[in-house]
Amino acid sequence: MLSVSPFAPESFPEIAPVAGVSLAVAESGIRYRGRPDLLLVEFTEGTQSAGVLTRSLCASAPVEWCRQALSHGEARALIVNAGNANAFTGKKGRDTVEETVGHLSRQLHCAAEAVYVASTGVIGEPLPSEKITALLPKLESELGYHSWEDAARAIGTTDTFPKGACRTAMIGDTEITLSGIIKGSGMIAPDMATMLGFIFTDAALPAPLLQTLLSEITEESFNCITVDSDTSTSDTVLLFATGKAQHPAIHEAADPGLADFRRALRELCIELAQWVVKDGEGISKFITVEVTGASSDVSARRVAKSIADSPLVKTAIAGEDPNWGRIVMAVGKAGEPADRDKLAIRIGETQVTQNGMVAPDYDEKATTAPYMKERNVRLAVDLGVGTGTACVWACDLTHDYISINADYRS
Amino acid sequence: MLSVSPFAPESFPEIAPVAGVSLAVAESGIRYRGRPDLLLVEFTEGTQSAGVLTRSLCASAPVEWCRQALSHGEARALIVNAGNANAFTGKKGRDTVEETVGHLSRQLHCAAEAVYVASTGVIGEPLPSEKITALLPKLESELGYHSWEDAARAIGTTDTFPKGACRTAMIGDTEITLSGIIKGSGMIAPDMATMLGFIFTDAALPAPLLQTLLSEITEESFNCITVDSDTSTSDTVLLFATGKAQHPAIHEAADPGLADFRRALRELCIELAQWVVKDGEGISKFITVEVTGASSDVSARRVAKSIADSPLVKTAIAGEDPNWGRIVMAVGKAGEPADRDKLAIRIGETQVTQNGMVAPDYDEKATTAPYMKERNVRLAVDLGVGTGTACVWACDLTHDYISINADYRS
Repeated sequence: MLSVSPFAPESFPEIAPVAGVSLAVAESGIRYRGRPDLLLVEFTEGTQSAGVLTRSLCASAPVEWCRQALSHGEARALIVNAGNANAFTGKKGRDTVEETVGHLSRQLHCAAEAVYVASTGVIGEPLPSEKITALLPKLESELGYHSWEDAARAIGTTDTFPKGACRTAMIGDTEITLSGIIKGSGMIAPDMATMLGFIFTDAALPAPLLQTLLSEITEESFNCITVDSDTSTSDTVLLFATGKAQHPAIHEAADPGLADFRRALRELCIELAQWVVKDGEGISKFITVEVTGASSDVSARRVAKSIADSPLVKTAIAGEDPNWGRIVMAVGKAGEPADRDKLAIRIGETQVTQNGMVAPDYDEKATTAPYMKERNVRLAVDLGVGTGTACVWACDLTHDYISINADYRS
Repeated sequence: MLSVSPFAPESFPEIAPVAGVSLAVAESGIRYRGRPDLLLVEFTEGTQSAGVLTRSLCASAPVEWCRQALSHGEARALIVNAGNANAFTGKKGRDTVEETVGHLSRQLHCAAEAVYVASTGVIGEPLPSEKITALLPKLESELGYHSWEDAARAIGTTDTFPKGACRTAMIGDTEITLSGIIKGSGMIAPDMATMLGFIFTDAALPAPLLQTLLSEITEESFNCITVDSDTSTSDTVLLFATGKAQHPAIHEAADPGLADFRRALRELCIELAQWVVKDGEGISKFITVEVTGASSDVSARRVAKSIADSPLVKTAIAGEDPNWGRIVMAVGKAGEPADRDKLAIRIGETQVTQNGMVAPDYDEKATTAPYMKERNVRLAVDLGVGTGTACVWACDLTHDYISINADYRS
């Protein structure tokens, strides 16, 4: 058994219910025993949806289903199972999704395309649809506001704590609720490599607008985290808006009336994304990498990811070693425009290098060496060529990561 | 102290002397004590050179010097120090290279551009040129055929064994010798991240032809290995041809008379590259990843690297777990053309998946589970879209890698 992440909160946060959203969980026994592993979410009629899905070319059957369903933009149900990712399961995997969706749409009297499916867990094992469909009537009968904590636990695999967050925003004079749950990459049992995130709001916003917002915000939240650089076949973030809140109609993402909602959604996505990192496998340090002075924001993100994904940078941080030479290496290998002779590196508040060499008054013992003992480590790099910026969050690479992924057999 | 790699040979191999090449080693005390860390190689007049250098945008001062010297194509000397990479050292670093080269070229009465410099070790620390130049007269007085083993030891940093290899080839009726030494990424002391390789031959071939051969062969040897995906600021491979062998003149890389030399150089480069992997940090398994059926060779190599660099694949192999779902993941994240529904994976001789799902008669317990206990693990993936192929060599990711890079402070 692995210990709970040092970044786990003392208790699950208070997360507000969202009008038009009902939850139920069950134990399917697909892989786990004695814990809920199946989540049904029912949405009120008229609920609009948006989503971002893995770019993996080996995407799972549920991901492919969601991609297709999202083009319709309406949602009546979401069904999530943990323990089996239904990925790389060929035609059988697609059949399982279709049977699950078929049962649920008949039961709820809705279109098949209004049913969303997400699966997380082992890759390559057939997922028998009966294990899910047999429980659907019971799940429906128990729908109601149970708890977000139960829902967050039901979608977890080997996450070491349930993860959720909540925000409110004003649209006109109406307070809107945004609640979200997420599971991360607690890949203790081999093959687990999935991030699933679900966000619910009572805002009354059309699907294309939601999609614009979510895609834009994903770039600076979910796409800015990395645990081990390994992209899952199942990464899924879905946003559902029930329309239960009474607020002035908004039709375009650029509408100024949406500013506070956008702020809240962005904060929520960043918090959820950071929770994934904070439960990253074997984490001992939470790392923030800020890159400025890049030729573009895209270039800045590539450099930040190169630093945040570098095993040598990550192990140095795990070892509390302010080993800035490895940051230079990671900038150099990224292949993005950078001026070596202007490269400026800060660790915490300390200027370590400037003008392509170590800062003249840099005193490791007095500054960065003690700083590296902190739980949260901030690295800032200025590339000296432009105005592009990016921020990426990551965890360190520790013995526990190896233990989780090598020592424990499936 | 870390133990010697399980892949270390019982003794240093027999490596033939190369006519026109003289060696001498010394102890500079730059970083290490009680071991040679400085290598001088003198070449006969008329020696031709070629080289491949790191693509890092933060390349070291010696790398920049070599890039410029290689445009002249002649060599009279090579000076290598271990323990300080002279990387990210700004103008001071360039001055050190120029002072070293200046001393040596005056001493040997040759052009500055005929002197090659390589440094490996800590990034970001000034390298005082006097530590090297003070020893140059003594080194010159001791030049002669000492031993390749001494030379290989002198260029090592935290390599766990000295590495070298040798081949012979026929050009016309003349037997040609090719001898090489290399150091790898034994990054036990933090900041060490350098591959240096030096190849010597008595062939009489012009610099542009040597460069063509070396560049071409590098693509399928040195550029096909990965220990931890972190590209050094100092990677350098240099090839020197003294012209002492009497063989028919050859002017073009396409000359059929060069076939055997090309074969021998290719074999030598692959063997040297594999030695680097076999001394990779914390290695317990030597991994060969073969990709076929790709849209191009370049695409095949990207997919092979994605697999070989994946922390989840590498930890699974360390754990002797035939976790093929992680191979699917690594193919998917590479972003290269692949047909998920034709993807075929072999582990050793066992067909694990075909047609986008697990093979119907796949029996893990009887086949891949025992196979994973071997020291050498072979993964083969067919992407099902074209005829591109690639082969990449890598090591696994173990607790020792973390210990080497996190537990030991600089």
